[in-house]
Amino acid sequence: MSVTAPQGFRAAGVTAGIKASGKPDLALVVNDGPDATAAGVFTANRVQAAPVLWSRQVLKGGVLKAVVLNSGGANACTGPAGFQDTHATAEAVAAALRGPGAKRMLLGAVDVAVCSTGLIGERLPMDKVLGGVTTAAKALAKDGGGTAAEAIMTTDTVAKNTVISGDGWCVGGMAKGAGMLAPALATMLVVLTTDAIAGSSALDEALREACRLTFDRLDSDGAMSTNDTVLLLASGASGVEPSQEELTAAVTAACHDLAQQLLADAEGHTKKVAIEVVRAATESDAVSVGRAVARNNLVKCALFGNDPNWGRILAAVGTTAAAFEPDRLDVAINGVWICRNGSAAEDRSKVDLSESQVQITIDLNAGAAQATIWTNDLSHDYVHENSAYSS
Amino acid sequence: MSVTAPQGFRAAGVTAGIKASGKPDLALVVNDGPDATAAGVFTANRVQAAPVLWSRQVLKGGVLKAVVLNSGGANACTGPAGFQDTHATAEAVAAALRGPGAKRMLLGAVDVAVCSTGLIGERLPMDKVLGGVTTAAKALAKDGGGTAAEAIMTTDTVAKNTVISGDGWCVGGMAKGAGMLAPALATMLVVLTTDAIAGSSALDEALREACRLTFDRLDSDGAMSTNDTVLLLASGASGVEPSQEELTAAVTAACHDLAQQLLADAEGHTKKVAIEVVRAATESDAVSVGRAVARNNLVKCALFGNDPNWGRILAAVGTTAAAFEPDRLDVAINGVWICRNGSAAEDRSKVDLSESQVQITIDLNAGAAQATIWTNDLSHDYVHENSAYSS
Repeated sequence: MSVTAPQGFRAAGVTAGIKASGKPDLALVVNDGPDATAAGVFTANRVQAAPVLWSRQVLKGGVLKAVVLNSGGANACTGPAGFQDTHATAEAVAAALRGPGAKRMLLGAVDVAVCSTGLIGERLPMDKVLGGVTTAAKALAKDGGGTAAEAIMTTDTVAKNTVISGDGWCVGGMAKGAGMLAPALATMLVVLTTDAIAGSSALDEALREACRLTFDRLDSDGAMSTNDTVLLLASGASGVEPSQEELTAAVTAACHDLAQQLLADAEGHTKKVAIEVVRAATESDAVSVGRAVARNNLVKCALFGNDPNWGRILAAVGTTAAAFEPDRLDVAINGVWICRNGSAAEDRSKVDLSESQVQITIDLNAGAAQATIWTNDLSHDYVHENSAYSS
Repeated sequence: MSVTAPQGFRAAGVTAGIKASGKPDLALVVNDGPDATAAGVFTANRVQAAPVLWSRQVLKGGVLKAVVLNSGGANACTGPAGFQDTHATAEAVAAALRGPGAKRMLLGAVDVAVCSTGLIGERLPMDKVLGGVTTAAKALAKDGGGTAAEAIMTTDTVAKNTVISGDGWCVGGMAKGAGMLAPALATMLVVLTTDAIAGSSALDEALREACRLTFDRLDSDGAMSTNDTVLLLASGASGVEPSQEELTAAVTAACHDLAQQLLADAEGHTKKVAIEVVRAATESDAVSVGRAVARNNLVKCALFGNDPNWGRILAAVGTTAAAFEPDRLDVAINGVWICRNGSAAEDRSKVDLSESQVQITIDLNAGAAQATIWTNDLSHDYVHENSAYSS
């Protein structure tokens, strides 16, 4: 049921004709209330697409009544004209939802977030986008979450949905792309919904903590999109107001579920790799070490080749400023401690890398903090997918 | 003539049997003086091989009389026993050169730098290394630079040599591997020689400036070796003492020549890419922007696919903290300004990427500083070379 699992939401996914393929390419998610609180997290890239600039701005009030998303074009690096296109799209959504009908709403463009994904540097075909908005507004349904999730797919092979149940309330969500996994800079777009009663600051706190522990720790190739957006909308329709801890836990669980689906669907990989850094002096140290290993092409190629090359892992750890002594580093791959005290330990032939799931554990021997970063291996297909198609 | 082009040097390259292939794998370079001043630059990786720890230490006195280099094993992550192996190798070189013969020298292990390259995490076969030292000492010749350069090759397809002539003096050099280009973490080892008269602090100043502008700006995949070493030895045999500017210029020219040879021989690439960042607020900004683009797998895959994907370049620039405004960025590929003011400009079809040399120019429009970073594209062969073989 995706984003329409919580009460108070309708959604639709339609074919606007933005994509040449004729596949669904425009999604609309509407919050029917009674509340319309919201929070958002956006790409840290300084080159930001027009829809990111727009949505960041409209979210400052902590209110959102609708989100419109398109695939088939990122509307990034399109200048002032691209920003006007985003504004016009939001305005069209507001107008369509203000129109006559059973679910007439009072809203303006500033109540509408916009998300786009696709090729950078080209204007969107606005006639098709605006036509799609009209079609989508008419198709809105209380069970429309699934079609919305399909309409935001680009290189995804499966639609990504999640539902996390609370006590009388729930969190629903959909995601597309691969975010910082970034095959073809395939923007990560995530819309989360909840029928819990929650103020925008409570939503913001929950969403930031959830992203910090999930999407921010997916790191397939270190590339950062111009369009990454994660939105959380609350309708309050359940009448239940969970505690901050309950809200944060449910949102984190939803984000974790979606993040693992993104990892599994990242293009051009043969393995999902969890890099667990333990006994770090600080969580920040653990994250930086995990990222350095996750971004190291030599480590990633070795994993693709089923080579438990702990020397490359140590060399990657050595590029960080984290607290550790080189001669006190331990490394395990799939539970086999092939490196102890910075030197060879158990026989590398004991490591079985034939499965698609790989667990690397790095013991910094420097404290009590830990973190896990998830990544993929680097395969022929990654190069193929990212060189053969302009995107 | 390589490292034996300057007067006062002898060298040899021999087959010690460290490599299973039976190819030459041990090189010796000896400075017959009259001077023995020296300087060195080493990997910034915190995980450092035993020979790096050793050579860094012995260079503190600013004196070197010999350098012994082996391929076939990095002697990295080998613990205290690995360090003892390095010490024993230096001692063996000193003993061999102290022995009877026409060129008897007075020296100890502390006068001998050691460089190693190959697989991380395994001990060296010391019987073969020590035997090779004896053989190499006997083979030392005033025209032996070429054989030394061949003996340090690993995945290199050609030996890399240079000679830069001064007024009555010269700089010679040899290099192996691909340093930060790092196919298979193939350590960059460089030995430079000169017959100029120069104190160790003058050599140090020249070498640091030369490395900063050349080897430090090669960045094929962001990986950093545990063994990278660049050494500069001066014999003073020419009797000429160049100015600091002359010395720095000649050493920089030698390093630039070797760096371009490394770039051309990096494994698994189809293109050499120069990323020129202009009108930056500071040189540091220019370098950080160039590095971010050079390390971006999506940009590198696009270049492999002959796709002038300026959107990926902008997205990479956006990950840096350099001074720029996103809507004032200009990007040219091979002279075609396909991005102006952060948006599409000239038609991307005008860009010809069929040649192996690619020039990317990024205009930050933020100042007067500039820097060039050199890198390669990311190809199927890179993945193949780095996944199929443990190294």
